[in-house]
Amino acid sequence: MFLRVDKLQIELPAPAQMDPNAGAALQELLGGKYGEMSTLGNYLFQSFNFRSKTKLKPFYSLVAAITAEELGHVELVSNGVAMLNNGPDEPDGDAGDGGDISQAPYEAMNDIRLAAAFLSNAGGAMPMNSNGASWNMDFVTTTGNVVMDLLHNFHLECGARLHKLRVYETLTDPTGREICGYLLVRGSVHAHAYALALKKITGVEIEKMLPCPNINLDKIPESQKYLAEGSHCRLYTFSPQDYADIAGIWGGGEMALPGDPPGDLEVIEGMPDGGKIHDLTGVPSAFTPDYAPEEMFEIATKLYKKSR
Amino acid sequence: MFLRVDKLQIELPAPAQMDPNAGAALQELLGGKYGEMSTLGNYLFQSFNFRSKTKLKPFYSLVAAITAEELGHVELVSNGVAMLNNGPDEPDGDAGDGGDISQAPYEAMNDIRLAAAFLSNAGGAMPMNSNGASWNMDFVTTTGNVVMDLLHNFHLECGARLHKLRVYETLTDPTGREICGYLLVRGSVHAHAYALALKKITGVEIEKMLPCPNINLDKIPESQKYLAEGSHCRLYTFSPQDYADIAGIWGGGEMALPGDPPGDLEVIEGMPDGGKIHDLTGVPSAFTPDYAPEEMFEIATKLYKKSR
Amino acid sequence: MFLRVDKLQIELPAPAQMDPNAGAALQELLGGKYGEMSTLGNYLFQSFNFRSKTKLKPFYSLVAAITAEELGHVELVSNGVAMLNNGPDEPDGDAGDGGDISQAPYEAMNDIRLAAAFLSNAGGAMPMNSNGASWNMDFVTTTGNVVMDLLHNFHLECGARLHKLRVYETLTDPTGREICGYLLVRGSVHAHAYALALKKITGVEIEKMLPCPNINLDKIPESQKYLAEGSHCRLYTFSPQDYADIAGIWGGGEMALPGDPPGDLEVIEGMPDGGKIHDLTGVPSAFTPDYAPEEMFEIATKLYKKSR
Amino acid sequence: MFLRVDKLQIELPAPAQMDPNAGAALQELLGGKYGEMSTLGNYLFQSFNFRSKTKLKPFYSLVAAITAEELGHVELVSNGVAMLNNGPDEPDGDAGDGGDISQAPYEAMNDIRLAAAFLSNAGGAMPMNSNGASWNMDFVTTTGNVVMDLLHNFHLECGARLHKLRVYETLTDPTGREICGYLLVRGSVHAHAYALALKKITGVEIEKMLPCPNINLDKIPESQKYLAEGSHCRLYTFSPQDYADIAGIWGGGEMALPGDPPGDLEVIEGMPDGGKIHDLTGVPSAFTPDYAPEEMFEIATKLYKKSR
Amino acid sequence: MFLRVDKLQIELPAPAQMDPNAGAALQELLGGKYGEMSTLGNYLFQSFNFRSKTKLKPFYSLVAAITAEELGHVELVSNGVAMLNNGPDEPDGDAGDGGDISQAPYEAMNDIRLAAAFLSNAGGAMPMNSNGASWNMDFVTTTGNVVMDLLHNFHLECGARLHKLRVYETLTDPTGREICGYLLVRGSVHAHAYALALKKITGVEIEKMLPCPNINLDKIPESQKYLAEGSHCRLYTFSPQDYADIAGIWGGGEMALPGDPPGDLEVIEGMPDGGKIHDLTGVPSAFTPDYAPEEMFEIATKLYKKSR
Amino acid sequence: MFLRVDKLQIELPAPAQMDPNAGAALQELLGGKYGEMSTLGNYLFQSFNFRSKTKLKPFYSLVAAITAEELGHVELVSNGVAMLNNGPDEPDGDAGDGGDISQAPYEAMNDIRLAAAFLSNAGGAMPMNSNGASWNMDFVTTTGNVVMDLLHNFHLECGARLHKLRVYETLTDPTGREICGYLLVRGSVHAHAYALALKKITGVEIEKMLPCPNINLDKIPESQKYLAEGSHCRLYTFSPQDYADIAGIWGGGEMALPGDPPGDLEVIEGMPDGGKIHDLTGVPSAFTPDYAPEEMFEIATKLYKKSR
Repeated sequence: MFLRVDKLQIELPAPAQMDPNAGAALQELLGGKYGEMSTLGNYLFQSFNFRSKTKLKPFYSLVAAITAEELGHVELVSNGVAMLNNGPDEPDGDAGDGGDISQAPYEAMNDIRLAAAFLSNAGGAMPMNSNGASWNMDFVTTTGNVVMDLLHNFHLECGARLHKLRVYETLTDPTGREICGYLLVRGSVHAHAYALALKKITGVEIEKMLPCPNINLDKIPESQKYLAEGSHCRLYTFSPQDYADIAGIWGGGEMALPGDPPGDLEVIEGMPDGGKIHDLTGVPSAFTPDYAPEEMFEIATKLYKKSR
Repeated sequence: MFLRVDKLQIELPAPAQMDPNAGAALQELLGGKYGEMSTLGNYLFQSFNFRSKTKLKPFYSLVAAITAEELGHVELVSNGVAMLNNGPDEPDGDAGDGGDISQAPYEAMNDIRLAAAFLSNAGGAMPMNSNGASWNMDFVTTTGNVVMDLLHNFHLECGARLHKLRVYETLTDPTGREICGYLLVRGSVHAHAYALALKKITGVEIEKMLPCPNINLDKIPESQKYLAEGSHCRLYTFSPQDYADIAGIWGGGEMALPGDPPGDLEVIEGMPDGGKIHDLTGVPSAFTPDYAPEEMFEIATKLYKKSR
Repeated sequence: MFLRVDKLQIELPAPAQMDPNAGAALQELLGGKYGEMSTLGNYLFQSFNFRSKTKLKPFYSLVAAITAEELGHVELVSNGVAMLNNGPDEPDGDAGDGGDISQAPYEAMNDIRLAAAFLSNAGGAMPMNSNGASWNMDFVTTTGNVVMDLLHNFHLECGARLHKLRVYETLTDPTGREICGYLLVRGSVHAHAYALALKKITGVEIEKMLPCPNINLDKIPESQKYLAEGSHCRLYTFSPQDYADIAGIWGGGEMALPGDPPGDLEVIEGMPDGGKIHDLTGVPSAFTPDYAPEEMFEIATKLYKKSR
Repeated sequence: MFLRVDKLQIELPAPAQMDPNAGAALQELLGGKYGEMSTLGNYLFQSFNFRSKTKLKPFYSLVAAITAEELGHVELVSNGVAMLNNGPDEPDGDAGDGGDISQAPYEAMNDIRLAAAFLSNAGGAMPMNSNGASWNMDFVTTTGNVVMDLLHNFHLECGARLHKLRVYETLTDPTGREICGYLLVRGSVHAHAYALALKKITGVEIEKMLPCPNINLDKIPESQKYLAEGSHCRLYTFSPQDYADIAGIWGGGEMALPGDPPGDLEVIEGMPDGGKIHDLTGVPSAFTPDYAPEEMFEIATKLYKKSR
Repeated sequence: MFLRVDKLQIELPAPAQMDPNAGAALQELLGGKYGEMSTLGNYLFQSFNFRSKTKLKPFYSLVAAITAEELGHVELVSNGVAMLNNGPDEPDGDAGDGGDISQAPYEAMNDIRLAAAFLSNAGGAMPMNSNGASWNMDFVTTTGNVVMDLLHNFHLECGARLHKLRVYETLTDPTGREICGYLLVRGSVHAHAYALALKKITGVEIEKMLPCPNINLDKIPESQKYLAEGSHCRLYTFSPQDYADIAGIWGGGEMALPGDPPGDLEVIEGMPDGGKIHDLTGVPSAFTPDYAPEEMFEIATKLYKKSR
Repeated sequence: MFLRVDKLQIELPAPAQMDPNAGAALQELLGGKYGEMSTLGNYLFQSFNFRSKTKLKPFYSLVAAITAEELGHVELVSNGVAMLNNGPDEPDGDAGDGGDISQAPYEAMNDIRLAAAFLSNAGGAMPMNSNGASWNMDFVTTTGNVVMDLLHNFHLECGARLHKLRVYETLTDPTGREICGYLLVRGSVHAHAYALALKKITGVEIEKMLPCPNINLDKIPESQKYLAEGSHCRLYTFSPQDYADIAGIWGGGEMALPGDPPGDLEVIEGMPDGGKIHDLTGVPSAFTPDYAPEEMFEIATKLYKKSR
């Protein structure tokens, strides 16, 4: 089972301006081959299909716990896409923008790279890549063989890191850069964790291949605060009570990756503090809520009060 | 953010026998147009893209909370698929089955409907339908318009109910039937909840269309224990602290759907008690763990002990 | 614009028995690369995108008129698929079959080749091929170049003919065989017509390549009555008033294809007489109409009377 | 069976200029999830697979008749796409444009959003959405259950309306705006008709949810002439003789949707008067007709004369 | 550039009987995620897109040379699929089988798992997996980063090995088993070679993870003759003159993988001796060659003689 | 089997500048319906699945030999895509570009049409079309019927020619134009060869339809040098020893296509001389080779020397 907490893993800075093409680039990190939907989908189905769960407990727990973190990554990138597609909230966006729908107020949307993101999804995120191609099961590997799955996951996290670097190199907006800076740190942890798991089973010191690609996180300004707080040394259980046994794989040693600040690898039961979810405004002329929005807001307020 | 709990929403009975074609039928409830990946994907992206989250709080919370439950449905159906594909565990399955891989021990897998489920996925679940076609973004609707999304969701839950009935009508195995019996109850709750949300906004008593399709749950023996414990009257927040305001939509009234036992609609903070996750065994000759499985089990046991 | 007539192009014999795998084979003629959805889709979009429609009138009219016939072919094959999937109607099928949905009445549906055809589509036809893969735009060629499009269409009709022969060779049921027998005649007309159009423009006697593949229709018993009535010599306008100028391409000559009975090529304004559409029964336990079917039938009867 | 009439449902104004990105936006209304290919595909296969056609006659007739109208919508949008992609006809376009193919005369086509629309389809329409993704069977729902299908169709028409509004808000060209203005009126009729059908069966006044999304047609200047002539009150049979019994569902009442002019709901046997189909010119250097176009035009003229 | 040699890499034994479901299983090795189309597609595009080809010559050569071998693997598996689908040649198959196409001679084809393989492809191989899903670009990784690509390739070859083992475990026919036995040896060489390349760059002894999955080739009877002749120690250049510098990566050492016979790693310039390509017969009633086959054979014989 | 030669079929001029949208247009010739992946895929699988190979030898050889040439076309277009995407090499590109990855050095990549080409593929070629849609098996026709396959291939080469003309009309860069100029010549040879093969079997003078589309090669400046050297008259065996019997189909006659210079049709055993493969540089900040590139280059140099 899964529980949901109404926070993002980190607080995102507001976008500087509306930039749908940047939002589209960020889609590569959501629905691309090495995007968050892929890491999620792989670990989700691997954990469901895991054989000998009890006898191989810490390995199972590792995949199961990281799955939950990936859900939050899908959420984080999706929020970023929507924020970049829509731009900064206007103070009274919800209250009605006075836009005249007969005057082609969204003409500019014809020329964005992924027009359907506006036409069908109102600037929201979708499980697709930066070219508008859908995520699908061809991105999921679940073989029933533990070593094979772990090796795949190690390669997947390295690929994800490469793609995050490339997307980062295209973005100027603080929202998207913050996401990349954070995910590079967390992705490095995951690659590292899978490497240690592989080493436990096979004896191969595959973690010495890290960082792969070979760009240290100290070159990414947006990653520094996460390194400073030790995020690169922490693996979360993302569970109220389960999966603490991942400490058998992660823990009891020191961070030894080049370019990462030193520290002890530690398992944190639960999740990070997280940050507030951005409140997209409604812009009635484009998103055309039924019934005057004021009326809907009033209904919602009444229901909210009633519920408390 | 999301947390994971190492339990299924219900305890599943062991499969009576290996039945990959039944597992394939169950895939329709996982990756079909109206399957659990679709309900999950719709609510996940709708909740990310939801506009005016604060002003429309109970409506946002409804979609957000049900998302978390759907994750557990994806998990439940996936476990069922793997159980039906693999059949009952053999006592010492993990220890080595003595199978001789040179004697075509899995010849029968050529004739199952979805051979790739064995060849590539070792009998595991995948995000595909019962014909082997991948789940994809074409099954996701997120329009930025609250009424449109809720109407879509109401129709989606009705469609899901129809498909659960059909799959149920094909299954003789207790594992698959239990899943259908349970999901029919929970799906009815979701359809009902979206209907009430639509009624709050539009005034249309669309819940009077339920049950749709028009087959009462009292015809499904496997649903009875869930009705008896009142599951049909409960909406869970599936959150440690958030989303309790869904009580503004669900609650304060009595169950009035024909064929469902009476009771008060109530919101439960948190999740159901749940049941144990099935422990698929490994069968070395087919799933070929690297390194003698005994050695791997020994390593895992050491790591597990070390972690405590 | 298009008008619809509530008839099939021919009367179909009832299926001898329920045979979902035969229905699935027939899907190749519906949604396969050379199926009716492809001929329809190609001519539909070619006719929309046709350049110099006025100056090239008879060529435009040819593509436009055949489009309308292909719509009826899609309808014909779809009806055949549904008939084979469902088998012969039972006398009081609609009235309720007394089936007990808790007794797995449709267990056999797990083992049919395309289980989703039952689970999702209730035995109905879908735009997919015999392996369950969707029809899609990759099967549409519309190049803006008349000769290229006509050459493509000639090859397409030859390919369609080959596939109809193969499907025919697998079918024992009279419903499916009748469809193949009829479509082989009509497909030959279309291949012939496109060949004549190409010859008018390029001078190449490409019709001498027919029949392609080289199996005469006299080997197909089910084709004989259509040959006897001269269907192989007729091209219909499938229009109340338009497209009669296709006589510039088809007409004024004698049938000269080897193996086809002699006759004059003639253009018929309008459509063939056609036959009754089969009335699939409802089988409440499987298709679960909402509200007691009797009640629905009663409502429908009242509305029908009211409308007259 | 289907007949074809060589007219569009309405006369389209010529495009003001070539605007391939606007044509691409219009593709969302053709091949998007809620586009005309989807409404067509759903009703086409639902009508083929409809159970108890005779006993549920007016409901069957409703789906069957609207199918034929949707064919004309596919045609209308496709014509619009081709017109916007190609721009206004030049007086002697067909006669040869003197373009020098060695001078990259179409360099601008590299930068349009959907370059393949030019490279492969010569500026023609294709069954794809505004991002270039193909229409496919995942957009088709045909469940064998009448209430479920009607509910789906109601939601589909509401979704289509939302997308038409969004596309309209991006277009400045009169061709595209006229299409949206007209289709918004006709889509409203279809949503309304499905709502009335659902009400007849279930008693739920779901039509009170209309207009959904909640933007009245009086805000769309291009819709006014269609409202003025009463198009919003008319349901056509789109058939020479059949389907008049849809009057049991549509008719006998007054238009009561907010924002629509008053009037009596009426069923029209047949089709609207329609307008002329646009005559795309050929532009030899880009579309390279084989054989000097003059020669082809001459051949066609001879054939045309011969046929009369 | 590529040259073609009219031989298979090995001589294949004739199939014992027609077994289309076994042919379909073999398709997993052709068009599955870890099939030969994937290894080919990955190395093909990686070699085209390789950066710093000259400066990184032996690494480039490694990918380029293995690409050519994979082409032969695609050929080998495809031949196997066609042989299993069609069964042993009948002595005078080509001469006409006397089959009566009106007697449903291929009724059995309705019940094979992938009916389209017969209906559309006449029992031929296609780039699809064992469920009939198409191979596509989602299986191609080409990142522009050498280490990342090599790591991907190492994982890909391990995955391919696992899938070959599974397919092998389902096959009883000598044709398919021979293919698996051979490809397991060659796939081990490729995994080994990529491991050595990675070790050269990163220093990580990743080859110690082999064999992965952990089943020694000595358990596969069909692999023994290839081991005996030293195939597991040889890397071919598959080029008349180029790529010999792969000896910088492969060579100069001894085979040290557990379970493989000892020997020196050596680079062979050129290709293996190879074996005869199977001569599928024509069976006129099913494959309907145009023009009496005798006539075609006669024409071909004349042309053949003329050419010499 | 296949051998590889480390050359392109022609020497390509360096690109004048980085132009990713032109590279994307060229993708239509790689992965579009009528692109090189399609010609390759069709002939590859047709040659594998060819029936009565021995008895129909020259026809089999024709398909087999052209397959090998198409591999080189896939290579040529792929090289062109990568060159246009990356622009001219900078003198010391590999040595490190001093780019600061924290300064969004690749911001421009957000606005190119196919951003994923940069983000995931580092400016490399992929088997997709100009809209980013994947090549797939729907583009492969292999029917088991020789005449049908040859007819398909003739139409395919004509379609490919049309698309090459259109892409050519959009390109200003010398790299892309050279590719089009060359491929137009070679594609004409293939269309011609398939036409002659069809004529041998059916007697229809289908080659008289050429050139199709009807634009002579003398209008394409970039084609002139290839015409001058007689490339339009030559069919290569692309084999060390096999396929010379294609001379039975191609040869013994004079070039008679309008617009092509005169000459004798001749079969060349082997391949053309070819040209050097372009050496893409590495640009560390974008493509992030692991380990300092200098170190990698040094390792590679040592390995290279060791191998000689």
